[in-house]
Amino acid sequence: MSSIYTHHFYSLSIILILFSITTVHSQINVWPKPRTISWSHPQLTLLSPTFQITSPIHTHLTPAITRYTHTILTKHYHPIIAPTVNLTSSSPLQTLTLTITDLISPLQHGVNESYTLYIPTTGTSANLTAPTVWGAMRGLETFSQLVYGDPPRLATGLFISDSPIFEHRGIMLDTSRNYYGVEDILRTIEAMSYNKLNAFHWHVVDSHSFPLVLPSEPELSRKGSYGPKMQYSVEDVKKIVQFGFEHGVRVIPEIDSPGHTGSWAEAYPEIVACANMFWLPSGTAWEDRLASEPGTGHLNPLHPKTYEVLKNVIHDVTTLFPENFYHGGADEIVPGCWKADPSIQKFLSDGGTLSQLLDIFINSTLPYITSHNRTVVYWEDVLLDATVKADPSLLPTGSTILQTWNNGPNNTKLIVSAGYRAIVSSSEFYYLDCGHGDFLGNDSSYDTLGPVPKNGGSWCGPFKTWQTIYDYDITYGLNEQEAKLVIGGEVALWSEQADSTVLDARLWPRTSAMAETLWSGNKDESGKKRYAEATDRLNEWRYRMVSRGIAAEPLQPLWCISHPGMCNYNYI
Amino acid sequence: MSSIYTHHFYSLSIILILFSITTVHSQINVWPKPRTISWSHPQLTLLSPTFQITSPIHTHLTPAITRYTHTILTKHYHPIIAPTVNLTSSSPLQTLTLTITDLISPLQHGVNESYTLYIPTTGTSANLTAPTVWGAMRGLETFSQLVYGDPPRLATGLFISDSPIFEHRGIMLDTSRNYYGVEDILRTIEAMSYNKLNAFHWHVVDSHSFPLVLPSEPELSRKGSYGPKMQYSVEDVKKIVQFGFEHGVRVIPEIDSPGHTGSWAEAYPEIVACANMFWLPSGTAWEDRLASEPGTGHLNPLHPKTYEVLKNVIHDVTTLFPENFYHGGADEIVPGCWKADPSIQKFLSDGGTLSQLLDIFINSTLPYITSHNRTVVYWEDVLLDATVKADPSLLPTGSTILQTWNNGPNNTKLIVSAGYRAIVSSSEFYYLDCGHGDFLGNDSSYDTLGPVPKNGGSWCGPFKTWQTIYDYDITYGLNEQEAKLVIGGEVALWSEQADSTVLDARLWPRTSAMAETLWSGNKDESGKKRYAEATDRLNEWRYRMVSRGIAAEPLQPLWCISHPGMCNYNYI
Repeated sequence: MSSIYTHHFYSLSIILILFSITTVHSQINVWPKPRTISWSHPQLTLLSPTFQITSPIHTHLTPAITRYTHTILTKHYHPIIAPTVNLTSSSPLQTLTLTITDLISPLQHGVNESYTLYIPTTGTSANLTAPTVWGAMRGLETFSQLVYGDPPRLATGLFISDSPIFEHRGIMLDTSRNYYGVEDILRTIEAMSYNKLNAFHWHVVDSHSFPLVLPSEPELSRKGSYGPKMQYSVEDVKKIVQFGFEHGVRVIPEIDSPGHTGSWAEAYPEIVACANMFWLPSGTAWEDRLASEPGTGHLNPLHPKTYEVLKNVIHDVTTLFPENFYHGGADEIVPGCWKADPSIQKFLSDGGTLSQLLDIFINSTLPYITSHNRTVVYWEDVLLDATVKADPSLLPTGSTILQTWNNGPNNTKLIVSAGYRAIVSSSEFYYLDCGHGDFLGNDSSYDTLGPVPKNGGSWCGPFKTWQTIYDYDITYGLNEQEAKLVIGGEVALWSEQADSTVLDARLWPRTSAMAETLWSGNKDESGKKRYAEATDRLNEWRYRMVSRGIAAEPLQPLWCISHPGMCNYNYI
Repeated sequence: MSSIYTHHFYSLSIILILFSITTVHSQINVWPKPRTISWSHPQLTLLSPTFQITSPIHTHLTPAITRYTHTILTKHYHPIIAPTVNLTSSSPLQTLTLTITDLISPLQHGVNESYTLYIPTTGTSANLTAPTVWGAMRGLETFSQLVYGDPPRLATGLFISDSPIFEHRGIMLDTSRNYYGVEDILRTIEAMSYNKLNAFHWHVVDSHSFPLVLPSEPELSRKGSYGPKMQYSVEDVKKIVQFGFEHGVRVIPEIDSPGHTGSWAEAYPEIVACANMFWLPSGTAWEDRLASEPGTGHLNPLHPKTYEVLKNVIHDVTTLFPENFYHGGADEIVPGCWKADPSIQKFLSDGGTLSQLLDIFINSTLPYITSHNRTVVYWEDVLLDATVKADPSLLPTGSTILQTWNNGPNNTKLIVSAGYRAIVSSSEFYYLDCGHGDFLGNDSSYDTLGPVPKNGGSWCGPFKTWQTIYDYDITYGLNEQEAKLVIGGEVALWSEQADSTVLDARLWPRTSAMAETLWSGNKDESGKKRYAEATDRLNEWRYRMVSRGIAAEPLQPLWCISHPGMCNYNYI
């Protein structure tokens, strides 16, 4: 019997220790949760009204320091549940000293984002140490989240050592189907920095509009945008890219082609197959549709002018965006569209195939893109589409990354097992637009009072809840070698049914859920999924984001935060 | 053969006429669509910069006229698709003259809201005639929607005769689970008036918070609200009620009881059974839960103090809200809660039943409410709940209205066939919060990477699209006599996962879909559902609402409006 008692006693100790850690950590409400926190004797200290951050001068870091100093001293965020830790009697914190080893490393994929933060119990100075300015920005964000109240106070006797699990953590925003103002994009980048995300994947053009003004091809936006007030000028892009640097957020342009290019036909009808046609002509079988959704048009790989225009576009885009990744799209090539074009009909009747057409296109563009010192990202279709796919030999694994969106973990596995690096944007977990119905008009399924269409009429419904996003393991089912090729993930906001009015609420706080999973994981020290304790932390984080001007949607009644555990399905 | 040709020719004429009507009507983008429009020779006229509206002086109408004059002259809304009708050469419109037969009829259920509007081709004056000021307000809204552009212009040679199909057209907003500012409520009432809705059903208190300040029972809000900044003062309520009058919107208070009263226990723990308990104790079967969701507490019908407090509440509420309807709630009485109370346990063990408890409660409150010259609205549960329901003899059909939310058309039929008037808020069609997942924490279904929970974890998912809402026939399956008892419908926004950040986007434009269905129906002159042509009109209306400051969510890519028919599922 004694061994059983010992065992019980041992278990009880573990439980008590874990409970104590949880309690202490829950007072440190940093989102995403840092990798390691040590706060052995929890106390708070006041922040001096003349608090300042000292650091080497740096083009992008210095504006970040100005911004964080302002946030720290003036925001006075009041937590819904204030920490129950006592104030120390020692002097207020006067200085945060930044020590950065390498002021040179640019913001690019794989840059070191680690940092350590030490706030000693005594003395008036805290230390933030980081190998790079980008790691320093992550540490500044952490520091800013430690501060709350009026007068501002924060944890003392605290040591944090932090770094991301995944190098690529981003948001894809579609600004073609509906337009977003520059201020919307800047606000999104700012909120990304709050969540330690580093990749703003800008799906800037598509079949519906071409808002990007390009000096070498001004007609594309002049004729293809929604109008002069719904364009991104060269100055706008510079501002956005610069803003990204100052927030540690890369701005990755996507010029989706050869599909999704209907808007190009406004300027150059001769290079676009099947432009401006009804997408699903009466009597057409689904597999013979002209587009994956209304808004038809694919670049014609056989027309020389296609490459003349596209190379101008690539040239301008690589000039405007210093970012090393160039996203080439290449998703959803719909056979019916190419087949509708007379010159392509000729090619096919001469024995050519649709995949050969894509090979011609890839071979005429990818080497040109990589010659600009770019890594090319394509959607997975280019490798995995059942009908139209490229010859893998044209897609060098060293300079090509594939972004997965179909079929959950299975397609990630297909990509990495073929030797490609993968960015995960599974539509089953990471598509933020899903669940709001379908945008198509005249759908006769609504003619009679029948059962509500499955998934509310949304192809990728239901709505992806924060829990669904939080709990997705993007390397699920991969072996260790394969998992290393998964460089990270992106949530995606396609804009058929989104624009400025709903941007913040569609993105936040659900994107925060992915941000934590990719930064420090979704499991606690014991390997258990931390969805339960994450609820209260994410809830509190949502309120702090709202206080910073991000209209993130609420997750629960306010009552739930002030009654911890009471809104659980299983009480803990 | 000739008869066939004649028949064909006849059909063709019909088609041409219908097409012509559709084309003309689509130029008159009034939402909800008026019952009858005659515009035989479509022309536009300019509005004089000194345009004015003349009318008898009236407390509530005069402010509306000031407001509409401002909107008409200054908003300069630019339609996405401008009408293709020519400007007349005659003089600009100088005056809209209002003629009102009855300046006395108060804003209450069943008041006449009809109007006629005539804008002659010649002359500088238009005429709006209405039996009541409330009909005049509807006509002013119509007139304001006819105006667009800079300088403002509008249709001329136009005659509209209009009135609602259903008398009760509303929104239910829950301000207990999360709080909304007074300005949110005012903006919602304003948007309701844009859509000719007339009933703001204010679900003001519930288990989570009691924000309503009541002079006779100040402790309820002082202790039961989310805090002093999250209350509705007497002045706030007066302002909201007054604002409602000036917009033709009744403000109907709901004091939900005996269930959903957990927040009352902060002031009066002795009158609330099972307050502040965990809603689903470990090992408890679903049917033995203590509440329908976290946030427990039911008023105890056996405690005399219950009625002392509640009668004070009823007294204050009927004083604050001049509205003739008083909503008493009475939904979701959960057996486990009452059974958890010792005094009720005694009652039950002595042979009493839960339904008898409800009878006691109804009998002790309903006559008091009706003595204040009120019609009582209850949720359907009071009649239809499987376990706890009242004796129908205690619910006089003359002074009781039942609001249905379960089981689609079936429960509507049960209500009206029992002789009660019905307000339809079917959760399958009219619940606007659905489809955004579940708010419960620690749901172990998220522990493993399995299929995403059905309906995204939302009990009432999927998301109710505007089409689902638009196409719901609230008298479906009823005979003529029964249908007359359906007084109208309300969309409902429960606020577990909604607050100020998402209010407009959750409500609009989906509520506009219901507004048209209840005002002029969802079918065209030939009896065919008009979901197809409604898409473009609702889209345009959404943009006008946005221009008026309502952050309504987008339904489609902007491209779809400028390419009519191209975003349809079936081309027309």
